[in-house]
Amino acid sequence: MAFIGIDKGGTRHTLVLADAAGTVVRHVQHGTDRAAGAAGELVTLRADIEALLAEAVALGTPVRAIGISFGGPVDVEAGVTILSHHVPGWEGVSLRALAEEWSGVPAVLDNDANVGALGEWAFGAGVGCRDMVYVNVGTGIGGGVIANGRLVRGQGSMAGEIGHLTIDPAGPPCTCGRTGCLEAYAAGPGVERRYQERTGVARSGREIFARALEGDIDAKAVVTDTADYLARGIGAAVCLLNPGRVVLGGGLSETGAQLFDPLNAALPRYVLPQERDTRVVPAQLGYDSGVRGAVALAMERVE
Amino acid sequence: MAFIGIDKGGTRHTLVLADAAGTVVRHVQHGTDRAAGAAGELVTLRADIEALLAEAVALGTPVRAIGISFGGPVDVEAGVTILSHHVPGWEGVSLRALAEEWSGVPAVLDNDANVGALGEWAFGAGVGCRDMVYVNVGTGIGGGVIANGRLVRGQGSMAGEIGHLTIDPAGPPCTCGRTGCLEAYAAGPGVERRYQERTGVARSGREIFARALEGDIDAKAVVTDTADYLARGIGAAVCLLNPGRVVLGGGLSETGAQLFDPLNAALPRYVLPQERDTRVVPAQLGYDSGVRGAVALAMERVE
Repeated sequence: MAFIGIDKGGTRHTLVLADAAGTVVRHVQHGTDRAAGAAGELVTLRADIEALLAEAVALGTPVRAIGISFGGPVDVEAGVTILSHHVPGWEGVSLRALAEEWSGVPAVLDNDANVGALGEWAFGAGVGCRDMVYVNVGTGIGGGVIANGRLVRGQGSMAGEIGHLTIDPAGPPCTCGRTGCLEAYAAGPGVERRYQERTGVARSGREIFARALEGDIDAKAVVTDTADYLARGIGAAVCLLNPGRVVLGGGLSETGAQLFDPLNAALPRYVLPQERDTRVVPAQLGYDSGVRGAVALAMERVE
Repeated sequence: MAFIGIDKGGTRHTLVLADAAGTVVRHVQHGTDRAAGAAGELVTLRADIEALLAEAVALGTPVRAIGISFGGPVDVEAGVTILSHHVPGWEGVSLRALAEEWSGVPAVLDNDANVGALGEWAFGAGVGCRDMVYVNVGTGIGGGVIANGRLVRGQGSMAGEIGHLTIDPAGPPCTCGRTGCLEAYAAGPGVERRYQERTGVARSGREIFARALEGDIDAKAVVTDTADYLARGIGAAVCLLNPGRVVLGGGLSETGAQLFDPLNAALPRYVLPQERDTRVVPAQLGYDSGVRGAVALAMERVE
């Protein structure tokens, strides 16, 4: 048996054909033609799916299910995309039903944070954990929760939103319309804002981390505070879920030990003494977490 | 088939015999003889278990499993009690193995917060929810998480500790040895401390809530702040888990609408707009949540 995993991101889509163990045997990627919109992307997606289905048949291991990661909000129960922040026309597309119609096999659709969590858990930094928390820090903060070896979606498919834990209700405005969320402090724009508040100078998150390594006092303070804010949010997740491991991915995680060391040093302040050995570790799959997670989603579907 | 549920609390133990649907058919309770310690309690527990086993046989529905709620920390994997804060001698008792030896059927042991969550979910205020968060507010704050219809224990059986979410790292000392935990603000002693800080007068939580109803400005402010602190902790759990319902039990929950109204009014400040209809509802089983949850624990064991 085989599976197809699809990662529909903002700037490209990636498909893989995986064997019964989830190992990738074929990899296809296409950039997004914004002008063609969702309709154009659907045409390419269909052709890519059909090519992989044919390849699976040629290999003698027909596809049993398709998993789809979508880079934007989705209605998981209905299998419908709500919108893409990058490409017009994705409002209310029944992507799951389309994939099932094209392929004749069951499909599952979920958002990229949930699917990324599943990918890291099944094939990356979370392998071997029954319970895992995944956090993705980039221009926003998303996340996913695995408990008892299963993805937790919650009642309205809204679980895992660690970026919207309140750090301080009197804090800065957040993209969600409220104030003081973890995301408003510790995602890229929050890091940049805090540096600018201290120095009056606008710099990118990458520059701030680079300057901190060079000894810039303000940049160092901003990095330390970033680690501490993340430790507070992650600490809340650890108190509630007692995961075996916390996996951190996204652009900010690429700063490596510069972020992970102070983050792991701060975490014991925000968890019970019995949990002070809980570690935050880097995600291992990088941009492949979506497409590998989509394979895991498909595999879960036929279990 | 039948089940035995046992709630070993600090001042008494309760046993029930339940039928295949979890309905209680027999109820037994004994007060704790502190002087006799754990050894004395084990003798009574064994006799009570044997009486219920015999009764089940007489009814023609033999017991298939035993669930045990213990009022103190336990090692769930090992089935061993760690200690009781109320009765000496409970350090390292293999209570699960003893129950299995006495009865000849499988037993499961868990702490009272987890078992209370399971009880409310299976038979009380959480019926019909796939995902539920349980919070117990009394002299401390405990909790339990149900996700995908299963109790979440976490890697080291420490999940559900919502009372130890950090509200403010610079806040008051907590029983856990850290500072600024939700419990330090919103459990009974925290409520009393905040009232005393405002007024210089020491009053019980019950008195403070009563005075708030009579118009005492300070007591009203303390009650409102209590609801707001609880909403912050619960809001974090809602962001992470998106439960269908939050069930609040324990002594403080007996204040009814006086607590639940401001708590539900405050909650939208701490959750995403899509989750603003999430409700905190009173636990329904009262002191029976432990023993009913123990029945659910036993039922889960033979599933």
